[in-house]
Amino acid sequence: MAAVTAFVGAGCIDGTGSALLVDSAIVVRDGRVEWVGPSSELEPTRDLERVDLSGTYVVPGLLDANVHLLLQFTPDVLLRFEPGDYDELVLEAAQVALAAGITTVFDTWGPLESLRRVRERIDSGEAVGSRIFLAGNIIGNDGPWSSDFAAGFGDAVSPDLVERINRHWVQGVGTDLTWMPAEHVRGAVREYVATSGIDFVKYSSSVHALVKFLAFSSDAQRAIVEEAHAAGMTAQACSMTPEALKMAIDAGVDLLQHGDVTGRHPMPEETIDLIAARQLPCVAFLVTERNVAAATSEEKLGIMDGYFSKRVLVKDENDRKLIAAGAKLLLGNDMSVFGPTARTHPLFGPRLSGPDPEMHLGRSHLYWLQAAIERGMTPMDALLSATRNIAEAYRKDDEVGTIEPGKRADLLVLDGNPLEDVRNFRRVVNVVKDGVIVDRNRLPEHPVLTDPDRHVTADST
Amino acid sequence: MAAVTAFVGAGCIDGTGSALLVDSAIVVRDGRVEWVGPSSELEPTRDLERVDLSGTYVVPGLLDANVHLLLQFTPDVLLRFEPGDYDELVLEAAQVALAAGITTVFDTWGPLESLRRVRERIDSGEAVGSRIFLAGNIIGNDGPWSSDFAAGFGDAVSPDLVERINRHWVQGVGTDLTWMPAEHVRGAVREYVATSGIDFVKYSSSVHALVKFLAFSSDAQRAIVEEAHAAGMTAQACSMTPEALKMAIDAGVDLLQHGDVTGRHPMPEETIDLIAARQLPCVAFLVTERNVAAATSEEKLGIMDGYFSKRVLVKDENDRKLIAAGAKLLLGNDMSVFGPTARTHPLFGPRLSGPDPEMHLGRSHLYWLQAAIERGMTPMDALLSATRNIAEAYRKDDEVGTIEPGKRADLLVLDGNPLEDVRNFRRVVNVVKDGVIVDRNRLPEHPVLTDPDRHVTADST
Amino acid sequence: MAAVTAFVGAGCIDGTGSALLVDSAIVVRDGRVEWVGPSSELEPTRDLERVDLSGTYVVPGLLDANVHLLLQFTPDVLLRFEPGDYDELVLEAAQVALAAGITTVFDTWGPLESLRRVRERIDSGEAVGSRIFLAGNIIGNDGPWSSDFAAGFGDAVSPDLVERINRHWVQGVGTDLTWMPAEHVRGAVREYVATSGIDFVKYSSSVHALVKFLAFSSDAQRAIVEEAHAAGMTAQACSMTPEALKMAIDAGVDLLQHGDVTGRHPMPEETIDLIAARQLPCVAFLVTERNVAAATSEEKLGIMDGYFSKRVLVKDENDRKLIAAGAKLLLGNDMSVFGPTARTHPLFGPRLSGPDPEMHLGRSHLYWLQAAIERGMTPMDALLSATRNIAEAYRKDDEVGTIEPGKRADLLVLDGNPLEDVRNFRRVVNVVKDGVIVDRNRLPEHPVLTDPDRHVTADST
Amino acid sequence: MAAVTAFVGAGCIDGTGSALLVDSAIVVRDGRVEWVGPSSELEPTRDLERVDLSGTYVVPGLLDANVHLLLQFTPDVLLRFEPGDYDELVLEAAQVALAAGITTVFDTWGPLESLRRVRERIDSGEAVGSRIFLAGNIIGNDGPWSSDFAAGFGDAVSPDLVERINRHWVQGVGTDLTWMPAEHVRGAVREYVATSGIDFVKYSSSVHALVKFLAFSSDAQRAIVEEAHAAGMTAQACSMTPEALKMAIDAGVDLLQHGDVTGRHPMPEETIDLIAARQLPCVAFLVTERNVAAATSEEKLGIMDGYFSKRVLVKDENDRKLIAAGAKLLLGNDMSVFGPTARTHPLFGPRLSGPDPEMHLGRSHLYWLQAAIERGMTPMDALLSATRNIAEAYRKDDEVGTIEPGKRADLLVLDGNPLEDVRNFRRVVNVVKDGVIVDRNRLPEHPVLTDPDRHVTADST
Repeated sequence: MAAVTAFVGAGCIDGTGSALLVDSAIVVRDGRVEWVGPSSELEPTRDLERVDLSGTYVVPGLLDANVHLLLQFTPDVLLRFEPGDYDELVLEAAQVALAAGITTVFDTWGPLESLRRVRERIDSGEAVGSRIFLAGNIIGNDGPWSSDFAAGFGDAVSPDLVERINRHWVQGVGTDLTWMPAEHVRGAVREYVATSGIDFVKYSSSVHALVKFLAFSSDAQRAIVEEAHAAGMTAQACSMTPEALKMAIDAGVDLLQHGDVTGRHPMPEETIDLIAARQLPCVAFLVTERNVAAATSEEKLGIMDGYFSKRVLVKDENDRKLIAAGAKLLLGNDMSVFGPTARTHPLFGPRLSGPDPEMHLGRSHLYWLQAAIERGMTPMDALLSATRNIAEAYRKDDEVGTIEPGKRADLLVLDGNPLEDVRNFRRVVNVVKDGVIVDRNRLPEHPVLTDPDRHVTADST
Repeated sequence: MAAVTAFVGAGCIDGTGSALLVDSAIVVRDGRVEWVGPSSELEPTRDLERVDLSGTYVVPGLLDANVHLLLQFTPDVLLRFEPGDYDELVLEAAQVALAAGITTVFDTWGPLESLRRVRERIDSGEAVGSRIFLAGNIIGNDGPWSSDFAAGFGDAVSPDLVERINRHWVQGVGTDLTWMPAEHVRGAVREYVATSGIDFVKYSSSVHALVKFLAFSSDAQRAIVEEAHAAGMTAQACSMTPEALKMAIDAGVDLLQHGDVTGRHPMPEETIDLIAARQLPCVAFLVTERNVAAATSEEKLGIMDGYFSKRVLVKDENDRKLIAAGAKLLLGNDMSVFGPTARTHPLFGPRLSGPDPEMHLGRSHLYWLQAAIERGMTPMDALLSATRNIAEAYRKDDEVGTIEPGKRADLLVLDGNPLEDVRNFRRVVNVVKDGVIVDRNRLPEHPVLTDPDRHVTADST
Repeated sequence: MAAVTAFVGAGCIDGTGSALLVDSAIVVRDGRVEWVGPSSELEPTRDLERVDLSGTYVVPGLLDANVHLLLQFTPDVLLRFEPGDYDELVLEAAQVALAAGITTVFDTWGPLESLRRVRERIDSGEAVGSRIFLAGNIIGNDGPWSSDFAAGFGDAVSPDLVERINRHWVQGVGTDLTWMPAEHVRGAVREYVATSGIDFVKYSSSVHALVKFLAFSSDAQRAIVEEAHAAGMTAQACSMTPEALKMAIDAGVDLLQHGDVTGRHPMPEETIDLIAARQLPCVAFLVTERNVAAATSEEKLGIMDGYFSKRVLVKDENDRKLIAAGAKLLLGNDMSVFGPTARTHPLFGPRLSGPDPEMHLGRSHLYWLQAAIERGMTPMDALLSATRNIAEAYRKDDEVGTIEPGKRADLLVLDGNPLEDVRNFRRVVNVVKDGVIVDRNRLPEHPVLTDPDRHVTADST
Repeated sequence: MAAVTAFVGAGCIDGTGSALLVDSAIVVRDGRVEWVGPSSELEPTRDLERVDLSGTYVVPGLLDANVHLLLQFTPDVLLRFEPGDYDELVLEAAQVALAAGITTVFDTWGPLESLRRVRERIDSGEAVGSRIFLAGNIIGNDGPWSSDFAAGFGDAVSPDLVERINRHWVQGVGTDLTWMPAEHVRGAVREYVATSGIDFVKYSSSVHALVKFLAFSSDAQRAIVEEAHAAGMTAQACSMTPEALKMAIDAGVDLLQHGDVTGRHPMPEETIDLIAARQLPCVAFLVTERNVAAATSEEKLGIMDGYFSKRVLVKDENDRKLIAAGAKLLLGNDMSVFGPTARTHPLFGPRLSGPDPEMHLGRSHLYWLQAAIERGMTPMDALLSATRNIAEAYRKDDEVGTIEPGKRADLLVLDGNPLEDVRNFRRVVNVVKDGVIVDRNRLPEHPVLTDPDRHVTADST
């Protein structure tokens, strides 16, 4: 392509909240937006390559505020990539996301080294994929093969091996911190943010697998947030009960991670009001009405009897109230890439098997957007939930989230107006990242989990 | 006995901190102390019966700040007393305590109805035993056959039966509360203190079985303490990490339950200073040097690898610092009565099998007192830890804890001066409760766990 | 009653296979039948008390060839009767059986000492109940709280206690024998039959809990049978596969215990022919068509996925073929008395919860008889399956099984002809044992498992 | 090399039992021995290449009668080679064996397809490795991730995956056969021997993981052996108790697989006499005295408490008696190649961790030979146990086992006389297979389990 490109003729919804700009022109130079306006105002320039987008609609490349580029940590997947080189899996997921128009992902828990390596390869242009921002570990959690996630996974291999696998996630800020005085927690976090190369901080307010318990005292939570801020990072907390949520808010977090999940009890009205009043960014795990019905009609999850269905109903009630109160919700829902063996696995199966499954990166964001509309969000707000608002929440709004001069030229080109019908988000014509049209047919380049012929996932012989 | 009795001739250490009164007289009327002074000042009275205690030493009847009158909740014990009539077991323990000179016990977790019934029978004089004050459930905990204590215990019986057994402990303030917003917790506790007949409130700051996690937010903890106070009760928290302890102190508890246990990390200096400065009563799980050595030299507990030994060392370090700082420590250590099957049980065996076992009601308090001396406590302070200080901490000092006019005439008569040699606490001559000499040879009247010939415990054909 | 009694006027089906004798008289002296004939031939005698049975039908008191007087070995039951005094439970079951007209039971696995004590109390007239013949242990099996029956039951108590409980069943002929050379097995069995006081020998051809495996070699099986015969006892084998059955037959057993159960594969035709040709007594676990339908339509048993339903269908096919071939089937089906907690227990629930439950002593024999008719047995053969044929198989036909001179005067008096309608077995008018009319309303005298108000079973607060 | 080669100058022990031939010449043509005799009788020939072996000793290439080329079926190994292409592992083991002088191995349980493929590659000369004869599955056993071997291994992956892995071993003759009538077993075995490409038949007389139980009736065992013989194959049985061994002998097996292992009870004298009298080939799991001492002094195996040590002592007693009686013992002991994670694994660790570990292919045969001498075997008999006798037992004595005209020219060249000192078996100078000197330094060519730098086994960051 030429040094300067103009994407011309599309209806443009720029993600700032402004109305549709008919017959727009978007001028891109060096991967960034230089100018946006009516195509009629575009002056013919010598070096400018015109890309005709007549009849299409352009929105900012989407963002996802809660992704795990590697989440299927079952032995059949992880043991194949011993000792801990998961780059291939991470890149596959980043490419699946990009092909679907999600040009930026926020990875909120994963194997640090592999995530970091793939982030760098993509940033440097060596590899194609969604732009990655990453948290590494959820501070306070042990690794995937521990009681925090899936205690039994390591039973059949040697303790050394289990420890080695977990280490990729733990990174020195694991469950040991939950034993510590607050000031020791502060020290460990300070070290972590200084040396790990992460982009933002995430910690456990709720204990992950046990849900109802708390991992850190208020003092410790405040210490973590302060250390994140001192390092110029945003901080977020994983919370799953009303009190864990409240503690995180009081600790000063910048983003509530699945803040709509409050376990068995609905969010108190005061908390809803607080979130709305402060416009505290809140990732919401929205699911469609069809999925709510399926999750609650069937006996879907045996693991914590009845809890799952109850949780879904409580969450749905919270979501409706938050939207009605004008809270700032963000798109996200543990989306990742899964192989066939995940579908029959008790840990992942339930959330992958509904009519509108929640966790498929590249697909489930469409159900999220539909669910937002179903719950009363305006089409424009739904779009902002997946673009500008996420960028602002993570303080990356100088780079991404809108189509404005100076921003990365990340565009999603659709075959219909998504403000008229949310299903038009499915009609992807093109994905542009850093001003370049993505060759979506090539992605993922090296399918592992997504390739039925590859042996990790195949069900042959 | 006559209406008025005088115990004459003993050296009296009255538990107020005053020095030994040689050749004392203690006049008792209607079960209470009427007068204490030199026997030379005792006027001959008509109706006064003299009990000659020449050559002995009298101290206040001992108190134990952390007892569980029923702790061996193994199936072989509980199922024998279905459906939940554990009175016989509770009374046995109360009699074992009394026979050893512990005239008042604070039961900090147990089956509410049985505890209440036995408390009433003893208070009314219908039964003989230690005076009981009780907490019922530790708020936030599920029953004994749950993941909070011993998850596998109910596996072989029907779920109905497990639920029925747990219900005796749970009493409406179980693990459900950990899911709740703080104001719901407040409501449940208000109801509990109003209707349960308990004497004081205990709640989980640390999660019981998981140790390192927190059960309640700061707001919820404050709500619990406020409700206890509003009902005129003291409140205490179970804490096992530095932060759980700190949260409990911040919530305003009146007593720190095993406050010296801080898991893997020693108590921060600031917390030690705070406890000492405020003279916050703190039950300490003191164990002798012999026991510390045994617990840490052997691989004693496999359950949480290495944790046990580490915990013992950390606790010991905390204890020494607290004593040096002048903190107000109280005697207690999960003491109870156990049958033979407990000794080989992984849950109880380790703490029952050291050279100076920690948990034997009627015996282990002697090791506690010895351990206090070993760690630098003065003999007088050791005595106060087991008498006046406990009474004050629980706000029962108008009734028990010292030998002063108006107080219950609870006396422990020893064959040697315990201030000279702590081992003299073993040389029990007599136990007096409410002014009456206890017939110690009869106790326990109906041995169950303590009787090798009774079938629950027997190992015969 | 007088020394001599005549039961007069009933239609008598004497259990020899002879046709109904209308208006019969049965003369009983000293508990035994003295004479049977038309009442018209009965000479008026001085000392003879006449019991008018006009309008009723008399059959021999029923026998059950496979009963366990104590089968609910769940902790809530067994631990209540520590250390091993289960007499109360055994007697309750013997009384439940007697009240239903089952005057003789063959207990094929149970706690030896309690069974023996209750057998003696009933035989001596000290207690009322069914006549008991007993096997004690199934040779080769460990106790109820072992991997042979319910491995997890003892997990929550001490190993000593588990061992002590199992010992009541094991009696020196447990799973140790499966490790031994055949001649050592012989020695252990010789000792057992000589000293245990059992009435007949039962051993494992199939391994109990693992079903598909074999416990003993052909040589060892022959040694067991030979030792039983040398001691004048019958021998039977527990078999659950075609080969285990065949090995037992080849070893010379006198009775095939649930010989119709062959697991996943139907019984080979040759085996059916062999059983029929030799008239080898075979206890069959007949269940009604309704129950077969229920067991196979639902996913009834999760324990061994799908196995249960398959087993039911295979068994049913075997039963039909055996009946068609003229095999000598005997009534039996693990019948026992159960408390409420058994119904929700995975081990017992499935076989107690069908429309026509299989295992209720006192009730399920009625379904057995109905099932026999459904599968093509003649009414007379059905009656013989529950009377004479069992007596002959166990070589007790000189005592019980028919109404003939010299036999025990055990009678079941019905309100309708059971040969006309098998449901008439339900219409019990009277039960006579040893010539005496049983006071059925009193039985069981001391309900435990059968009493909803007793605490072992109650589901109250 | 030339078409004809002469290995000249070595002392030759030809494996027929004949005495040492000093200064021998072994003429090899087309991979087979053409002539053996004193080198002085060797006529100078044109095309003959002379290999000078002066100062060395030549014995036949060794055979191992019980090898598993792939035995470490832990998830970290198997999942890396999904879906079931274990050729690399099998070949590695075959090369480890060859490099140690074991020129022929009998694989008695393993993944059929991979074993078959590697066997063919070696036979065709495409790959270098020991000559392989294989049994595929042990008839009656389920796969490695089942209750027959390691039930928990598949818990963390999907059931589909577990089934797929097990299928590589099961091959249609798995645990289903234990449910079948004997004639069905016969049919399944007939099909298996006809279609599977195996070299010999192995079946379970003892149940593998449960040890003390029996998998097949005598009739079924006979049917299996008959089908093997009808297909021209030898048959062997896995037995672990006296009776399982006896049943196998009675069924007509050609070889007793670890026939010296009889569990908790020593082999009866009659069985010893029978084995000796019939000269029934019997693989014995000989271990050195040092190892017996280690296995029985420590509490080595917790899996089946005490059983392991008992088993070792019983086996050792059997071994001594069998040797004294002149039984024909064969070398073998589950030898395989293991990676570092096996050493800390409870399933393999105990037998890999003694002073003279039992199961290391390429090393542990040296301990076996030493143990044979320790137990009274003559040096010549020890050599025959590892050469001619194995060849005869498997009916491969027309091909391997001795240095005689017509046989494969498989030679082990040693630096000392192994009949003088059994430790001379360690002093390997050269290994010759099919007349060609093996380049031992290259083996294994592609180390996986044996390479500390390869990631399956590495314990690095």
